Amino acid sequence: MNSKAHPVTIAVDALGGDFAPSAVVDGVALALQRDLNLRIALCGPAEVVEPFAASPAAHGPGGSRVDAYVTTEEIAMDELDPARAVRSKKDASIVVAARLVKEGAAQGFISAGSTAACLAAGTLIVGRIRGVARPTLAVVLPGKKPVVLTDTGANADCKPELLVQFAEMGRAYAQATLGLDDPSVALLNIGSEEGKGSELAKATQTLMKEKTRNFVGNVEGRDILEGAADVIVTDGFTGNVVLKTLEGSMFYLLGNLKKALTSTPLNKLAAMALKGSLKELKSELDPDQYGAAPLLGVKGLCLVAHGSSSPEAMANGILVGATAVRNELTEKITVALGS
Amino acid sequence: MNSKAHPVTIAVDALGGDFAPSAVVDGVALALQRDLNLRIALCGPAEVVEPFAASPAAHGPGGSRVDAYVTTEEIAMDELDPARAVRSKKDASIVVAARLVKEGAAQGFISAGSTAACLAAGTLIVGRIRGVARPTLAVVLPGKKPVVLTDTGANADCKPELLVQFAEMGRAYAQATLGLDDPSVALLNIGSEEGKGSELAKATQTLMKEKTRNFVGNVEGRDILEGAADVIVTDGFTGNVVLKTLEGSMFYLLGNLKKALTSTPLNKLAAMALKGSLKELKSELDPDQYGAAPLLGVKGLCLVAHGSSSPEAMANGILVGATAVRNELTEKITVALGS
Repeated sequence: MNSKAHPVTIAVDALGGDFAPSAVVDGVALALQRDLNLRIALCGPAEVVEPFAASPAAHGPGGSRVDAYVTTEEIAMDELDPARAVRSKKDASIVVAARLVKEGAAQGFISAGSTAACLAAGTLIVGRIRGVARPTLAVVLPGKKPVVLTDTGANADCKPELLVQFAEMGRAYAQATLGLDDPSVALLNIGSEEGKGSELAKATQTLMKEKTRNFVGNVEGRDILEGAADVIVTDGFTGNVVLKTLEGSMFYLLGNLKKALTSTPLNKLAAMALKGSLKELKSELDPDQYGAAPLLGVKGLCLVAHGSSSPEAMANGILVGATAVRNELTEKITVALGS
Repeated sequence: MNSKAHPVTIAVDALGGDFAPSAVVDGVALALQRDLNLRIALCGPAEVVEPFAASPAAHGPGGSRVDAYVTTEEIAMDELDPARAVRSKKDASIVVAARLVKEGAAQGFISAGSTAACLAAGTLIVGRIRGVARPTLAVVLPGKKPVVLTDTGANADCKPELLVQFAEMGRAYAQATLGLDDPSVALLNIGSEEGKGSELAKATQTLMKEKTRNFVGNVEGRDILEGAADVIVTDGFTGNVVLKTLEGSMFYLLGNLKKALTSTPLNKLAAMALKGSLKELKSELDPDQYGAAPLLGVKGLCLVAHGSSSPEAMANGILVGATAVRNELTEKITVALGS
């Protein structure tokens, strides 16, 4: 891709996530291998970030591609008031990463730490794009084709006007990362016919019909993985429940499948023959391939990685983030909301 | 089971569902075979109900166990205003079935017709139990253990007080059909910690802590199939989205699995060896085993079967319904709400 030529710097919180810092720095190493025009601003304790910046994994033809930002504070996964912690812990790794974006030293930041802390850092430090009422947390779901689901938890209570903005921002993200010219938008609802749904869904339908480009109407829960639209919009309560229900059902089903495949010696033999195909199936369902969830609507990229992110998931998050920057996500959102 | 000795009559709408009337009458025949103290009031056109009532499938040792109720009207699956149709079409099969319950000729009715028509028939004809603000549509989900999820679509917009009632009615259903003494209740939310969630979820937590017996707190989407509680309560919008998302993900995953198992001759061979185990896996996930969704809070049983119900699903719906009647579901709800 031509756009890969454009150099991008992503700030990375080395401390976020269940397997930090090792999964994070391994992910950074993978991303650097795959994208030769990527630079990383690695934020974390001296004993983590300095040796990595000096290591062969961090070096390209022109020297180190990793800048070490030594930080001394941390925001825990179970921090009771993450927004307050983001305000008060000026030297926390995630706060420093977000500040690098605000100051222009990086174009985006990623953290596998507490989602609430990421949202707070994105909103309070990086700041909203002009005209954005509330940033929205989007997720790209696997399925028959990738689908941008938003909001997935940043805004538990929504008004119709917010959902209309989420649709525009979701479209911009689909354009910037999925290579779609004119992504279609659907409203998640409890019936496909017009006039169905909760008060919020009914009012949103009316508004979207008027304001949302390429609005294809309502879709139901069962249509999500069928790729019924490129962008599916809902409030953050419903979206978060959907996301976790999908996660849970995949986990449950793959777990039971594994049990079935190992229950007898004959089954184990048969499973060996199927290994390749089952691996393929699993990878098709693997949210890791889409990396991290972007908080759309902030001035610069803010990527929330899953707490249990593997190095592969971190690497994909960083790479998708670099693509979004190169394809001018922030500019696209600004234009979409200004029009 | 001793309780099986108690005779029960279930009214059946012969016309409801995508495969009616054949899937319905085949389901009735199965149910009659399995429960010798069951009677059926079969409502539908003369050419369907009369031959069946006279057939050997309908006969037990003491003569026919099926009463034919000839009806002349029908409420279509895509009826635009189902509540109005229920009011105006006095001789529709589903209306007659509901009236039999109201008049005491049957203790419950089941239909695989339009969900909205079933809800209207239950609420408008059978009528609410005293003290019930709004009946709630529950579903028993498969998973590590069966879970009663409610509301799944009868009430798109809810107040905290309604959810507290749904919890009580869900508990009564779990007691009557799952054989549990003191079912646990959880609130579906977007975080397990106290104080999380939408305005509705937060207010409901506070109220449930005070009023709901065996309330175990919040659960998330990923906990549903893990059997985190016996009864999981949510508003009808979220519940309906969850139900259909689960359906969609199971459908998607099993479809992809089938593709993987038939993609090469070697895979097909391996799949043959696994046939038994995979069938078992599929049946564990099969919502058919729990039959139909009860509308809780009406004076008598109202069972909403899936539009695509197989004979097996219809039979299970009828049998679960008979169990609920024998275990005095309506009385349990009356007591729970009266206390």
